[in-house]
Amino acid sequence: MKPAYFFFMFQNSITQLFGIQYPIIQGGMIWCSGWELASAVSNAGGLGLIGAGSMRPEVLKEHIQKCRANTSKPFGVNIPLLYPYSDEQIQMLIDEKIPVVFTSAGNPAKYTKLLKSYGIKVVHVTANLKFALKAQEAGVDAVVAEGFEAGGHNGREETTTLVLIPEIVNAVKIPVIAAGGIATGAAMMAAFALGAQGVQVGSRFVASVESSAHQSFKDAVVKAKAGDTMLRMRQLVPVRLLENPFDAAIASMEKAGASDTQLADFLGKGRARLGMFEGDMEEGELEIGQVSSLIDQIKPVSEIIEEMMNEFEVTKNRISKF
Amino acid sequence: MKPAYFFFMFQNSITQLFGIQYPIIQGGMIWCSGWELASAVSNAGGLGLIGAGSMRPEVLKEHIQKCRANTSKPFGVNIPLLYPYSDEQIQMLIDEKIPVVFTSAGNPAKYTKLLKSYGIKVVHVTANLKFALKAQEAGVDAVVAEGFEAGGHNGREETTTLVLIPEIVNAVKIPVIAAGGIATGAAMMAAFALGAQGVQVGSRFVASVESSAHQSFKDAVVKAKAGDTMLRMRQLVPVRLLENPFDAAIASMEKAGASDTQLADFLGKGRARLGMFEGDMEEGELEIGQVSSLIDQIKPVSEIIEEMMNEFEVTKNRISKF
Repeated sequence: MKPAYFFFMFQNSITQLFGIQYPIIQGGMIWCSGWELASAVSNAGGLGLIGAGSMRPEVLKEHIQKCRANTSKPFGVNIPLLYPYSDEQIQMLIDEKIPVVFTSAGNPAKYTKLLKSYGIKVVHVTANLKFALKAQEAGVDAVVAEGFEAGGHNGREETTTLVLIPEIVNAVKIPVIAAGGIATGAAMMAAFALGAQGVQVGSRFVASVESSAHQSFKDAVVKAKAGDTMLRMRQLVPVRLLENPFDAAIASMEKAGASDTQLADFLGKGRARLGMFEGDMEEGELEIGQVSSLIDQIKPVSEIIEEMMNEFEVTKNRISKF
Repeated sequence: MKPAYFFFMFQNSITQLFGIQYPIIQGGMIWCSGWELASAVSNAGGLGLIGAGSMRPEVLKEHIQKCRANTSKPFGVNIPLLYPYSDEQIQMLIDEKIPVVFTSAGNPAKYTKLLKSYGIKVVHVTANLKFALKAQEAGVDAVVAEGFEAGGHNGREETTTLVLIPEIVNAVKIPVIAAGGIATGAAMMAAFALGAQGVQVGSRFVASVESSAHQSFKDAVVKAKAGDTMLRMRQLVPVRLLENPFDAAIASMEKAGASDTQLADFLGKGRARLGMFEGDMEEGELEIGQVSSLIDQIKPVSEIIEEMMNEFEVTKNRISKF
């Protein structure tokens, strides 16, 4: 039975800020979110983000151009501020007149003013209250509050989405987008109950037809059960990983008291590409959220968004009766 | 302005199961929840639980009798199944005709059948899906699903409330009570959006007038800021603690790779009593949830419950308009 959600109007500060239909943002993830995923999400009424973390400037430029060729809707780029080429990446986003930039893993004050002077909407991703306040002070339009359950890089405070959202909502005046643990319309409603105005969804879109994750990684996400992810490398740089031989090796090194240098040496370079993009399920690093336990099928993006908005409506009707 | 919530009827599987007015359960916590707190919660329309974990059988008996003298409403007892005297405690609950028993930290199959044969409602507290299924199989009436953000003893999977509730709700047929990170009516609504039928609240009730926590501990909970709690002793027995010199010592021992024996030796006995009950803020163990960052005042139980139910209503009205 075809749902009637297309008649459902959703307007709030986040849909208005980005000029989108639904307050669903697709997280900009390394190796998983290129032009194909981002344009599919934007075409389906959400905000697609190209994950620039794994892209050299020339590759990023290609993705931007292909994304633009495939959607007339707004889309954005996520730039983790920890690579040597972020200056170059930022300049390109300005040249390419990208309407929305999400920054993460760095100081929100670094580029916000510059980007805003070109009329670009800026959002900063943070895992703690302190950086949310810093981001607001830097002039961002919104913040993403990402909880401990999120996949990939993570905060040191280990604050969960359920606690982090109200901590930040209570303290800032700008809209808050919730991230970490959100793969369904019910979780989206939970985030909204806590005061979020939008959600950023990562893991659910990794397991989409359009994501650039390797098929073996997508299959592993679908197979993941409760308790199959864990936060690793808490001292070095906390990251949530899916259980596999590489993860088990990291875990036993940590248990044996390995130093940061030993861990960094073992990690080496290119592990995330190897696992997530090239599909080496043994030696590769597999970044995914706890919520992968709730994801049981690879679907096209349009179905994922339709499903989430329907679940959101169903949840609303259910809780309205309390 | 006096709210009108007293006219608000709430009926669901949890209120019916326990014969209570609101689906708010007060967590049975060591050193904080004696007869005074439990009877106050039950009198205010929730379900009060005596935390038997810190009570020898004769002390527990005294608390049960005082609780009964102070409320005509249903109340219960939480029994962590890790003490040598749990057989004796369980027999006393049967003799005393306690209507509700929550078991935790052990095998739900151990006493469920016995307790149920006396018409006692049995609930098991779990931090993972596996034990929720075990508890259902053992015949419990409901489970508490307690997330990583919760204070005190915690699961090894580190699953957050946002992910754990739907994991369990999707898998069991019995009602699920959400715990961990819930101190407000907004968070209660978030839990209900995820499919919970009730909430178990701990930290919020520690900072109540009626809790038996030491005044210094209550004050510390109110002062706690974002990021002030952390999960410690992950290898030994995971426990969420509030930052203090004792916690800092544990943290630096762990960073230095201390063995389980070294940690257990340093921990010794009576640290929780020393901190939470006797008020030694330096050397004592202070068990509290992440959500302590959102708690900013010590209030009487009746006000806490009134406030939560009002926030629940306000949240419902807000999200019903989406």
